[in-house]
Amino acid sequence: MQEILRVNMNTGGVIRQPLPEEYKLLGGRGLSSRILLDEVPPACDPLGEENKLIFAVGLMGGANISSADRISIGGKSPLTGGIKETNGGGVTALRLARLGLRAVIIEGKAPADKLFYLVLGEDKAELHSADELKGLGVFDTANALQAKWGKKAGLAIIGPAGEREYCSAGIANADKDGSPTRYCGRGGLGAVMGSKGLKALVVLPADKPFKQDAADETLWKESVRDYHQLLNTLPPTSKVMPIYGTNSGMDFINQVGGLPTRNFSQGQFEEVEKINGEKLLQVITERGGEGTPTHNCMPGCTVRCSNRYPDANGKIICEPLEYESIALLGANLGIGDLDQIAELNYICNDLGVDTIEIGAALGVAADAGLFEFGDFEQARAYLLEIKEGTVTGRMLGQGTAVTGKVLGAKRVPVVKGQAMAGYDPRYFKGNGVLYATSPMGADHTCGNTFLDKIEHTDPDGKIEASRRAQKLFTVIDTLGFCLFVNAAVKTSPDLFAKLFNARYGTSYTFDDLLQIIGEEVIAGELEFNRRAGFQPKDDRLPEFMRSEPLSPSNSVWDVPDEAIDLIWSKKN
Amino acid sequence: MQEILRVNMNTGGVIRQPLPEEYKLLGGRGLSSRILLDEVPPACDPLGEENKLIFAVGLMGGANISSADRISIGGKSPLTGGIKETNGGGVTALRLARLGLRAVIIEGKAPADKLFYLVLGEDKAELHSADELKGLGVFDTANALQAKWGKKAGLAIIGPAGEREYCSAGIANADKDGSPTRYCGRGGLGAVMGSKGLKALVVLPADKPFKQDAADETLWKESVRDYHQLLNTLPPTSKVMPIYGTNSGMDFINQVGGLPTRNFSQGQFEEVEKINGEKLLQVITERGGEGTPTHNCMPGCTVRCSNRYPDANGKIICEPLEYESIALLGANLGIGDLDQIAELNYICNDLGVDTIEIGAALGVAADAGLFEFGDFEQARAYLLEIKEGTVTGRMLGQGTAVTGKVLGAKRVPVVKGQAMAGYDPRYFKGNGVLYATSPMGADHTCGNTFLDKIEHTDPDGKIEASRRAQKLFTVIDTLGFCLFVNAAVKTSPDLFAKLFNARYGTSYTFDDLLQIIGEEVIAGELEFNRRAGFQPKDDRLPEFMRSEPLSPSNSVWDVPDEAIDLIWSKKN
Repeated sequence: MQEILRVNMNTGGVIRQPLPEEYKLLGGRGLSSRILLDEVPPACDPLGEENKLIFAVGLMGGANISSADRISIGGKSPLTGGIKETNGGGVTALRLARLGLRAVIIEGKAPADKLFYLVLGEDKAELHSADELKGLGVFDTANALQAKWGKKAGLAIIGPAGEREYCSAGIANADKDGSPTRYCGRGGLGAVMGSKGLKALVVLPADKPFKQDAADETLWKESVRDYHQLLNTLPPTSKVMPIYGTNSGMDFINQVGGLPTRNFSQGQFEEVEKINGEKLLQVITERGGEGTPTHNCMPGCTVRCSNRYPDANGKIICEPLEYESIALLGANLGIGDLDQIAELNYICNDLGVDTIEIGAALGVAADAGLFEFGDFEQARAYLLEIKEGTVTGRMLGQGTAVTGKVLGAKRVPVVKGQAMAGYDPRYFKGNGVLYATSPMGADHTCGNTFLDKIEHTDPDGKIEASRRAQKLFTVIDTLGFCLFVNAAVKTSPDLFAKLFNARYGTSYTFDDLLQIIGEEVIAGELEFNRRAGFQPKDDRLPEFMRSEPLSPSNSVWDVPDEAIDLIWSKKN
Repeated sequence: MQEILRVNMNTGGVIRQPLPEEYKLLGGRGLSSRILLDEVPPACDPLGEENKLIFAVGLMGGANISSADRISIGGKSPLTGGIKETNGGGVTALRLARLGLRAVIIEGKAPADKLFYLVLGEDKAELHSADELKGLGVFDTANALQAKWGKKAGLAIIGPAGEREYCSAGIANADKDGSPTRYCGRGGLGAVMGSKGLKALVVLPADKPFKQDAADETLWKESVRDYHQLLNTLPPTSKVMPIYGTNSGMDFINQVGGLPTRNFSQGQFEEVEKINGEKLLQVITERGGEGTPTHNCMPGCTVRCSNRYPDANGKIICEPLEYESIALLGANLGIGDLDQIAELNYICNDLGVDTIEIGAALGVAADAGLFEFGDFEQARAYLLEIKEGTVTGRMLGQGTAVTGKVLGAKRVPVVKGQAMAGYDPRYFKGNGVLYATSPMGADHTCGNTFLDKIEHTDPDGKIEASRRAQKLFTVIDTLGFCLFVNAAVKTSPDLFAKLFNARYGTSYTFDDLLQIIGEEVIAGELEFNRRAGFQPKDDRLPEFMRSEPLSPSNSVWDVPDEAIDLIWSKKN
């Protein structure tokens, strides 16, 4: 039987309890959001006692299948003021699943100035003093914890940014090789972890791993086989991703004119060829050494979208170097140099901040005249100020919206206080609807439509496209799948329903899952946000996107507000 | 017939039109709020094209009576995001009234980087280039304008803070002697003026002054005589104010423990005797020279609450030095030296920022560790950074809430984004209700109850006390009276009804005025805010006031939210 673990940071008390019956068919995002709705006052201070931080394993977690061990982390976001889930790869979820845990709930707050880390194992759930880890970067923290607890431990770590409770702070998970570089980056949940006085979660490998038996082992084996075969056959998961990784899309996005460039003032970057997927592959391959263009962050993942980016001597600068980071720390800052981008990315990873939020904040700062676009040295210096805690560093660390407010900027690419990712919504209007209406704020991972075969700049049909995508991605995030399986889901939805039914003894169609998971989870999240005070006016893109045409398409944001306000009133 | 003047900053076009019939019994706050409700989309960007800046004369303006020529300035506030009126003394309203104008409405926005000043006279309404005034402080601006247009011109000026569109920016009005020190300080309306590209309003004296005849001259003369007699008899207006000015209350407020000290962490300041009303009077009197402890900012005002504070050589450091500024720039920063406070105040006046907002922002900054309480030199250096536009300066310039957000502060004394004035609401709970529920955000001028004979720390009855006070002050602000006549109004409400009836040919009781002006104006403002998206959760004091007892009374904020939410549902 799976269980839930509660840790009270005020007292250090730990309670392990059976997974409640009503949570049986919830995992990942669906579970963390449901617990938040059930237990956290929506109007609470995100950095106060009443908020909770939830680590949740997906419904397919721990099942020995590819791409299904994402860890979902949930809480009320200090960045958006609403409900938030952010998921990442690595082995945190797998290790938790092996201990028989579906979720770990961090409650309360440690006494002021106390910092702890939590160690979970087969026979232990202990808070240890993290005094020696105070102020350490993510990498030093991981090294210290691994020296004591072994390289195989699942780790979820905050850096100095989380300790400082910056709204851009993320939580870094160790990958299968122990590298703490798989970020649950969005929404500032690292600040929530910091506010609770928790520096790290350490999940020890189980000697006798808990195994969740499939309800129908025969059906399970058959569908798992088909699933892996599908991943190994479909071009996106078997060819594009394993070769180019997430940066594969940059050329297309740039070509159509949807690449955020110089604080979203342009849709194309003239130096794109220095930072695109081809270039990234070429540099990594030529340099060799510790570098690799393809790498799996979770054991058994066949998609292997990740990479390790080496310097000229073959020593790793940064891993992974992903599309979003390259777009926001590169094109968006006018920086066309992968080595420079990799260095900025590494600093962000060590600080423990979201590259999207910080790249966007730096873009706003440059646009407001704080530095020149393309000035890598200054961008780097500002990142170091974030760590140091200067006023400028704190401003940037609080994210794009705060940076825009301080600087009186007119072009601030956020929705619900959260920065947009690497898809300008004036071109990719399905993503515009997503940014506007997702309970998670501007978060591309909640329903990216950039690869959909749709007329992206035509406002018609984008409400429907985004609604479909959001429901689909909610199912994916609740099952614990990596979002890159979405091509497989679209090809064979029945297969995914089969996987689900085999494991849980149900008899759902995939449409059922879209309804009982996709719709229901989103409805609960919207209800949380409604109680937190969100209104239709919060479901708006920034005004400049309606008035400033995006070159070269000259497209503007023109999906009507009235249509946006009705997105959840329909079912399809 | 009185008129309204509209200036379109996009085109430079000016329209003069008769005062609409439905505005006949509206002036000051009542008129500016009504025009905003009628003409400005509540959800608009406060610094965008759609907002309007309204200068409105009170219903008793231009009538040659004491204390009745306040200028009301209204607009959607960039600080609170809601409707705002802020009024000040000086001669702006009187000059407008003499030109036959009840209101001037500034619409649109000047082309980017263009800056103008508006000159109004009997035969002119012209926009002039203000290129030579760009970046100038309030005093240099006034000097330049007076050199060209004469010392008697009414002036309303923004400083560098308004040009930079800081949310703490106010608008300075010249007093009867030409000193540009009468601030419409609250709500950041200086930023609205800056956003429109308007550096100053210059209102020339009329050769043939417009005179608004009283409907009943006999009754008018009689009631004016009684009114002046009352002001000259009542202790507050005839003795306390003309001797000690607004700082007269500091000893009482400190004694009971309601004086914001060191960022609202204490209610008493141990150095109060160095900055109280007695000390201020003593220093000004002893030093003499240009200094004076009593001064009237409007012609004919018998209350003369103002002062001019000289240095040891008798040269003016700052005029006026008022209670709110001494509380927020003094006790709240741990600074117990009138010379230092006067210097900080002068810098604020020249920059064109609200001393309350900036004093509170500096308090938050000190509390967050940016500097030590009591460190005058550092406080001064930060004020100069506001002018310079460093990141820290911009942060402070955007006000207390933004400063708190950047610094991750836990003790941020704001409601609706606006800083509280010099009355800690944990002691003065009527003011707490006011801060929470006024459509204007935390603004003591909208219904101060600190002199009411009530049990201030008892939560019971404070809803009623604040409702009464808010309606009363709304009437006062709509009539254009200075709020210091409120003692007279309370003593002889019938006399004020008589003044009103004599001038406008009506037959209202004062209770009628409380209803048709007090209630109706507030209802319209609440409606504007509702459409702008305000919710009950915005009518809350900061959480720390519920949890941190205020020394020495150890009182906490304990008026129930449920009672607060019902304040406007009752009539009394």
